[in-house]
Amino acid sequence: MKIAVLSPACWRTPPRKYGPWEQVASNIAEGLVERGHEVTLFATANSVTRGSLEAVCNQPYGEHPEMDAKVCECLHISHFMERAGSFDILHNNYDFLPLTYTGLISTPMVTTIHGFSSPKIIPVFKKYNSNNFYVSISNSDRSPELDYLATVYNGIKTSQFTYRSEAGDYLLFFGRIHPEKGTLEAIQIARKAGMKLIISGLIQDEKYFNGKIKPLLDDKTIVYSGNAGPDKRDQLLGGALALLHPINFEEPFGLSVAEAMMCGTPVVAFNRGSMPELIADGKTGFLVGNIRDAVDSLSQIGNINRADCRQWAINNFSMGKMINGYEAVYEKILEGS
Amino acid sequence: MKIAVLSPACWRTPPRKYGPWEQVASNIAEGLVERGHEVTLFATANSVTRGSLEAVCNQPYGEHPEMDAKVCECLHISHFMERAGSFDILHNNYDFLPLTYTGLISTPMVTTIHGFSSPKIIPVFKKYNSNNFYVSISNSDRSPELDYLATVYNGIKTSQFTYRSEAGDYLLFFGRIHPEKGTLEAIQIARKAGMKLIISGLIQDEKYFNGKIKPLLDDKTIVYSGNAGPDKRDQLLGGALALLHPINFEEPFGLSVAEAMMCGTPVVAFNRGSMPELIADGKTGFLVGNIRDAVDSLSQIGNINRADCRQWAINNFSMGKMINGYEAVYEKILEGS
Repeated sequence: MKIAVLSPACWRTPPRKYGPWEQVASNIAEGLVERGHEVTLFATANSVTRGSLEAVCNQPYGEHPEMDAKVCECLHISHFMERAGSFDILHNNYDFLPLTYTGLISTPMVTTIHGFSSPKIIPVFKKYNSNNFYVSISNSDRSPELDYLATVYNGIKTSQFTYRSEAGDYLLFFGRIHPEKGTLEAIQIARKAGMKLIISGLIQDEKYFNGKIKPLLDDKTIVYSGNAGPDKRDQLLGGALALLHPINFEEPFGLSVAEAMMCGTPVVAFNRGSMPELIADGKTGFLVGNIRDAVDSLSQIGNINRADCRQWAINNFSMGKMINGYEAVYEKILEGS
Repeated sequence: MKIAVLSPACWRTPPRKYGPWEQVASNIAEGLVERGHEVTLFATANSVTRGSLEAVCNQPYGEHPEMDAKVCECLHISHFMERAGSFDILHNNYDFLPLTYTGLISTPMVTTIHGFSSPKIIPVFKKYNSNNFYVSISNSDRSPELDYLATVYNGIKTSQFTYRSEAGDYLLFFGRIHPEKGTLEAIQIARKAGMKLIISGLIQDEKYFNGKIKPLLDDKTIVYSGNAGPDKRDQLLGGALALLHPINFEEPFGLSVAEAMMCGTPVVAFNRGSMPELIADGKTGFLVGNIRDAVDSLSQIGNINRADCRQWAINNFSMGKMINGYEAVYEKILEGS
C-alpha cells in the first residue's frame, strides 16, 4: 500500500523530547514500513524515517519561536494535499486544518484525532464527518457528534522501554508541567506518602511552574529533572516505584502511562478520561478519585506484579498492536471505495 | 462574468466601523454588481450585498472574542474553495491562507494583497506565485520576490463622502490607535501648531493608548471621539481643516487619506510607503519628513484648493476607477486561459 503519513511540524518526527503527536505519527510510519508498505512521511526537514521523507518546513516551529507557525503549517499541509494523488491512502495526524482541503482531493484520508484542544474545533470535524474517516485514540475521547471507524490505541516501541523486574524507591511525575496534568497534586501525594518524587517534563505553563511548583522543589525529596529524551525517559520510568498521573482533565490518552507500564512500572492515576482503558485497576496500577486515595493506594503498590504491567502494555499498547489496527482501518476503507 | 469575492470574516462586510479589507471587498463586490456581473460575496452571515451572499461564519470573530478565529477562517475559506467550480473567476481579499488551496482547484484566482503583515508570510505568496494572479494596492507595496498583474488602488464610494468647500477648524487623526499609525506624532503636531485635534479610530494597541495617548487627552484641544461608523466618518473627515497622517511604517495604502480628500480635506502625511502615490504634494496636501515640517506645512494649508482634493480622489480612488482596474485584470486572465 502507498501510504502518506502527515505529522505536525511543531517538533521533529520523532521528537527529540516532548512531542506526543509527532511520536505517534513516527511510530505509525515506522511500523508501516516494517510491514512492507511504501510509506512517505510528511514532517519537518530534520525528521528521521526509514520511509521517504517529504518536508517543506526546514525547522520545527516549536524549537524556533521566530518562525511563523501558521505559515509553516499551511505550506506543510498544502504540500501534503497537492501530493495526495500519488497515494492509496492519506493518514492525517495534524488536527483539523487538513480536513478543510479534503473536499478538493479524491484520495481517502484517515484522521487520527489526538484529542480535542477545545469543543470549538468540533464544527470542522462535523463538517467533514461524511467524507473522512476518523479514528479515536480511546473510546472515552469520542465526540457523540462524530462518526468513527475505529479506536486504535497509541502504540509505543517495546524496544525503547526496558523491563525492570525490581521496583525503584521514588515516585515519578512524567509529562507537561501544567495544571491539567496535576503536577501539584503529584507533589501533594508524594509528601503525604512521605516519599521522594521526581518531576520530568516540558514546562508548558511557566506561571504555574514558577508560582506553584518551583517553591516546593528542594532538590532532595521533590526534584525537577527537566524535559527528558528517550534514554532518560526509559531510565526514569523504569526506575520508579510508581508513576503518579493525577490528571485534572479528560485526557484522551496518556503516552507516559503506557510507557511506564511497558517498563514494568505501575501507575496511580485519577480515574478520568481514558485512564480506565489504559490501566487494569488493581493489576497494573490503581484508579483513584482523590489525593487521599492515591496515598492509600501506594501502600498496596507492592502487590502489583511488574511483569503483569509489561505484559498488559505489550498486549494493548505496542506498536505492532497499533499497526494491526491501522492496517484494518485502511483495508476497510479501500474495500469500500 | 460569474465572480466569487472572498472577504475576511473578522468583521461584517461592509464593516460597521473598522475593517478596511472588508470595506474594500464590499466595494469590489458592489461595484461589480453595478456593472452587471453575477457576484457572490463570501463573508460573515450578517453581511450586506446586492449580489448573492454565502456565509458559513454566523458572526464576525472580531466582534466575538469567544469564537475560535482559526476555525471560522478555515471553514470560511474551504467553503469558498469547494464552490470554486461554479465561477469564472475567484477574487481573494483574505491574505495568504486561501492560496494554499489553489493547487487543488482549476478556477483562476485573483489575490489582492492588502499589505504584508510581516515578511514571514512572503514564502506562501512565493510558492503560489506562478499559478495565481497578484494585484498590489500601491506600487510601493510590491514585493520584489513576486509577480504582479496590476496595481489597482482601493476605490471608495463617492456618495458616502460629502464634499465640503469650506475648511473646518480642527485637525483630524483617523485610523487605528497604534504606534505605526503615529497617533502620538499627530498630537505633537497639533500641539506645536496650537490647534485642536480630534482622534478617531479603533484602539488596537491598548498599552499604547493608555500609556502614551490617554494622558494627553484634555477633552478640549486633544479629543478622542471613539471608533466611527460611516456617518460619523463622513462628518469628521469633511469637517476638518486637514487630516494628519504621520505614519511610522511603509503603509501599503491609506483608506482614510483617500476618504479625506474625497470630502475635500487635504492631508499632511509623513512621506513613506504609498503616500507619494496617494497625495499630490502641494496640491491635495503635503508630504513631510518630520513633525516640524508637518507643523510648517499647516501654515500653507489654506493654499490647498479643496475642490482639487475632491477631483483628485474621484479620478484616482473612486469605486468606478477601481472596478475598471479589476475588470481589466479579470479579462486579461480569462483571455489568457
